[in-house]
Amino acid sequence: MPRTRTTPPSPGPVRPGPGAHTALRPAAVGIREGFWQARREVNARTSIPQGPHLLESAGNLHNLRVVAGTAEGEFQGTYPFQDSDVYKWLEAASWQLAQRTTPEDDGELADAVGRIAALVADAQQPDGYLNTWFQLREGGKRYEDLRWGHELYCAGHLIQAAVAHHRATGGTELLDVGRRFADHIDSVFGPPGSGKPIDGIDGHPEVETALVELYRETGERRYLDLAGYFVDRHGHGLLGNEAYCQDRVPLRDATNVEGHAVRQLYLLAAAADLATETGEAELRAAAERLWQAMTATKTHVTGGLGAHHDKEDFGDPYELPNERAYCETCAAIASVQWSWRMALLTGEARYSDLIERTLYNGFLAGVSLDGERWLYVNPLQVRDGHTDTGGDQSARRTRWFRCACCPPNVMRLLASLEHYLASTDADGLQIHQYVTGRYAGDVDGTPVAVSAVTDYPWHGAIALTVEEAPEERPWTLSLRIPQWCREYRVRVGDTAYDQTDAPVSDGWLRLERTWASGDQVVLELALDPRLTAADPRVDALRGCVAIERGPLVYCLEQVDHPGGGLDDIVLDTTRPLAVKHRPDLLGGVTTVVAAGHRRHIPDAGWWPYRAAEGAGTPSAGEPLELTAIPYYAWANRQDGSMRVWLPTS
Amino acid sequence: MPRTRTTPPSPGPVRPGPGAHTALRPAAVGIREGFWQARREVNARTSIPQGPHLLESAGNLHNLRVVAGTAEGEFQGTYPFQDSDVYKWLEAASWQLAQRTTPEDDGELADAVGRIAALVADAQQPDGYLNTWFQLREGGKRYEDLRWGHELYCAGHLIQAAVAHHRATGGTELLDVGRRFADHIDSVFGPPGSGKPIDGIDGHPEVETALVELYRETGERRYLDLAGYFVDRHGHGLLGNEAYCQDRVPLRDATNVEGHAVRQLYLLAAAADLATETGEAELRAAAERLWQAMTATKTHVTGGLGAHHDKEDFGDPYELPNERAYCETCAAIASVQWSWRMALLTGEARYSDLIERTLYNGFLAGVSLDGERWLYVNPLQVRDGHTDTGGDQSARRTRWFRCACCPPNVMRLLASLEHYLASTDADGLQIHQYVTGRYAGDVDGTPVAVSAVTDYPWHGAIALTVEEAPEERPWTLSLRIPQWCREYRVRVGDTAYDQTDAPVSDGWLRLERTWASGDQVVLELALDPRLTAADPRVDALRGCVAIERGPLVYCLEQVDHPGGGLDDIVLDTTRPLAVKHRPDLLGGVTTVVAAGHRRHIPDAGWWPYRAAEGAGTPSAGEPLELTAIPYYAWANRQDGSMRVWLPTS
Repeated sequence: MPRTRTTPPSPGPVRPGPGAHTALRPAAVGIREGFWQARREVNARTSIPQGPHLLESAGNLHNLRVVAGTAEGEFQGTYPFQDSDVYKWLEAASWQLAQRTTPEDDGELADAVGRIAALVADAQQPDGYLNTWFQLREGGKRYEDLRWGHELYCAGHLIQAAVAHHRATGGTELLDVGRRFADHIDSVFGPPGSGKPIDGIDGHPEVETALVELYRETGERRYLDLAGYFVDRHGHGLLGNEAYCQDRVPLRDATNVEGHAVRQLYLLAAAADLATETGEAELRAAAERLWQAMTATKTHVTGGLGAHHDKEDFGDPYELPNERAYCETCAAIASVQWSWRMALLTGEARYSDLIERTLYNGFLAGVSLDGERWLYVNPLQVRDGHTDTGGDQSARRTRWFRCACCPPNVMRLLASLEHYLASTDADGLQIHQYVTGRYAGDVDGTPVAVSAVTDYPWHGAIALTVEEAPEERPWTLSLRIPQWCREYRVRVGDTAYDQTDAPVSDGWLRLERTWASGDQVVLELALDPRLTAADPRVDALRGCVAIERGPLVYCLEQVDHPGGGLDDIVLDTTRPLAVKHRPDLLGGVTTVVAAGHRRHIPDAGWWPYRAAEGAGTPSAGEPLELTAIPYYAWANRQDGSMRVWLPTS
Repeated sequence: MPRTRTTPPSPGPVRPGPGAHTALRPAAVGIREGFWQARREVNARTSIPQGPHLLESAGNLHNLRVVAGTAEGEFQGTYPFQDSDVYKWLEAASWQLAQRTTPEDDGELADAVGRIAALVADAQQPDGYLNTWFQLREGGKRYEDLRWGHELYCAGHLIQAAVAHHRATGGTELLDVGRRFADHIDSVFGPPGSGKPIDGIDGHPEVETALVELYRETGERRYLDLAGYFVDRHGHGLLGNEAYCQDRVPLRDATNVEGHAVRQLYLLAAAADLATETGEAELRAAAERLWQAMTATKTHVTGGLGAHHDKEDFGDPYELPNERAYCETCAAIASVQWSWRMALLTGEARYSDLIERTLYNGFLAGVSLDGERWLYVNPLQVRDGHTDTGGDQSARRTRWFRCACCPPNVMRLLASLEHYLASTDADGLQIHQYVTGRYAGDVDGTPVAVSAVTDYPWHGAIALTVEEAPEERPWTLSLRIPQWCREYRVRVGDTAYDQTDAPVSDGWLRLERTWASGDQVVLELALDPRLTAADPRVDALRGCVAIERGPLVYCLEQVDHPGGGLDDIVLDTTRPLAVKHRPDLLGGVTTVVAAGHRRHIPDAGWWPYRAAEGAGTPSAGEPLELTAIPYYAWANRQDGSMRVWLPTS
């Protein structure tokens, strides 16, 4: 049964239904100012409003109109999943409408959402099916190419958009479309013996999480069961046992992530959803095991995931190249979605550690500072003399892609960012990510709220004020102490604690008090810049360090280092790192200044390999001041080389 | 005008015509015994005889029969260039026939060649065109998809096979087919204003070298002109300026190799051919410049070329990954073909240095020791826990490929290997590669011949005997001192010289004498095993060394190091390397034994990056004896990890 409209901001994509087995429930967060709000305003004012124009010129809307019978022509575009770009934009715009942070744009955006949602409804077939590629190009054939066809993938994004739209606006027009499609899928797909015509799965998971969300939104149990069926049937050879399609091995038996990164991560998000809803221990254990294996062996320091260009897939353990890091923007988004579900399921802070790292680095690099240009892949190095061949996988930002999965995915994550920041349980409120805004939730039946003011990540102080609290009942305000943080202190009212007095436990600083409205807490995280090295098994990073500060990974860009390339730059690890805030630079960033030099390598002749004993030490050139900028801000000035990992000798 | 049959062994694929501007001419070499003859016997007895069966089961011969009207059915296979597999096999078998080293198989092989050559002739259209993909699948459309269609590429391989067949057998039946196709192409393709209907080039170069060879074989100048036209038209946007197709920039303006590796190398081989035939200085300079840039910045230590899987293309300078090294077997072959043309054009020894390195390592790894299984890509590392997804780009040897370009390419290079070993000029005979056999050529109008006995590359002694020499006229016997060689000595008759007395000059040890039949020369190359390091700009190889001995690059295989994986092995560079010949192992190899250990890395938890100051040194485990085998012999036992480059700390 559809629920009534919730008060924005919405409680987020994971809203456990009755009988849920979560440790935590998402809290409502309003982001008011600061780092993320600036990015969200660009998203609201530039990226999302441009969406309909870009979907128009790429042909996506045209395709829907032809199917709806209001236009004529052939399918426009390259890929069978182009409808999903429209649905992801609808989801982003719906979350945006829910925020009402840009009232002056609201009418126009609401009009666009209404118009495009109506177009989708018009295009839907009477039986609930919709896919413009198969309807226009494949003569209406259905479900005959589950490996590549993306029909259920597109349906999933439509359903997810429908849920978002309903939560944001309370209107049921798109939710009805999503339900009709889900009902249609439920009538077609099922296990052997179910009487359903097809026992099958989609090569690209996505419908699974969407169906769980539809269950949460409607209370209809069969959507959850259908999601469970799809998750369970992966790994049994329905798609030829291809790792790429998440079909080589059942999730419950897998020992590490593999195959196409986004497919793997969407499937694991669904596994976490199902473990949350059903309480199944085996599925939860598999999700925990795979998360641990992924982060320990297959995650770039930026949180980026996916080592290979040719199949957009995970590499072997510790295979983490720099210049060919794939790190698809969509994979970073999927990682946040999966990790958040794991955080809620387990209550463990490490999932939000990875979310923080991913948001500030591997994800945010995917969109330009002006919100108009995008990166599909997010390498950790661009060499001197790089020959960029253009196309979707370019190391240069692009206005739109032939395969435009990433831009609307960025839009929807930024527009729904408040879903991923805080949680509650029966004992209190947990703050996972620090923003200037208001965190509110329900603690054992009573509303609590805490406001926060911070200039994080540039400064480490977070000033919290209790705004709402039950009278005379103690509860715990839990603050995540980030995994990168070596030193912090906290003041509660007039009492100051260092980290010995107020120790971190499993990533959480837990402050149990009988809080009263007006109580103040100031957390201070030390933000000294630091040098980071990798596990020695990561061959690509031997003899290198990365500069980090707080949650930010830094990089060097060619434009800040005239007079030569970056390939010969060496960092001097014996000299201190300095911090310099540059309000003029890249929208205002704190840079890290380090000492280094450019090495002089003797002319190698025609062969670059030589006797080890003589090849040791290129001579050091003039000392050089290295200016490191946050990785997320790279590729916003002139083209040139870039590197995160810096040799130390 | 067709020349009459030459006496095998044939003088090789580069036979300058009148007016040639080469420094050197290929000499005739007969390989009798030793390392390469063993590989060639496997090629002659196993690989080449299996070719027709594999071409039958993959559908290549079926396709020709359908076009010839002697069978019915659809096109079998995946790719538009499948005809070329047949032609490459015909070329390989023809070179094999020319050798007559396996007389017992000769009749059967000659029958197979005759049968398949006749099939090709039957399938050819009256106007000379032939391409089963376009005839069977594309309704006979021609030259409408030059970027991907491979019509001229296939024609090139047919022409090259025709030249080989003519040289080997003296028969004109296949040469006539090749000429008809070349004449047809000449009637269709030409520059604007030529009156020819199409101004175009093929996305995959190959026809260019073939046309030069056809010119050499027939003396028809217009084939040379047509080759020059095709080379010149690359880089002018006829194929959308794609680097992949060698169309981004004209060769004469290029500064480094780029795009699809095999395409680049075939085009450069043609450039060397044209510079040889026309004497054009600019084209020669471009070829020299690009060879220098390629070897200095884009060549793996095995001679392997091509850094990327997704486009089979060159990476950026110094981007030389190990586990994702593409190093297509065909690229190694193309590199040998180009470098040999450069060696003849310039007389410089370095080209044969690269040929030697490529032959013994990056090329030879492409075929199993038994001649029955193949590698398409030749990585320098396979990690512990590698998930192999199979397919053509697998790191496991495969019986045949969907894209089966490499196996018959290996067959033709092994069957024609004697073409690449020696040369003559007016002053003498140059020995580029050392084999047990006979080197013969023409020096200023007089035949000279030298026989050689050697157990190279296992032992460094090469015993040479003058067999034929002009009376009372001095000439120079030039011996290539390999670029890797740090110490050698030579004995001429009873006189011994060390490298001070008989210095190397530009890679050549030149012995000018009035030689008499029976004169003896013994060259001894010191074969101490050595550790090699890479240019510091090769990020993938920082802190690593490779083991080499003579021309051989070594690697570790999992199977020789039980009790753990290879990812944690560290080589101790302070301990000496030992040499151990193992006649029982891998057909008889000299192993290099080194000291090392497995490092113990403390459990990293879920995040593999940590503070640089504390992350320095994993503790060293028990000492371990490391057994390195020649890289070419890897992947001939059980599956497992492998690595060429070894960390030193």
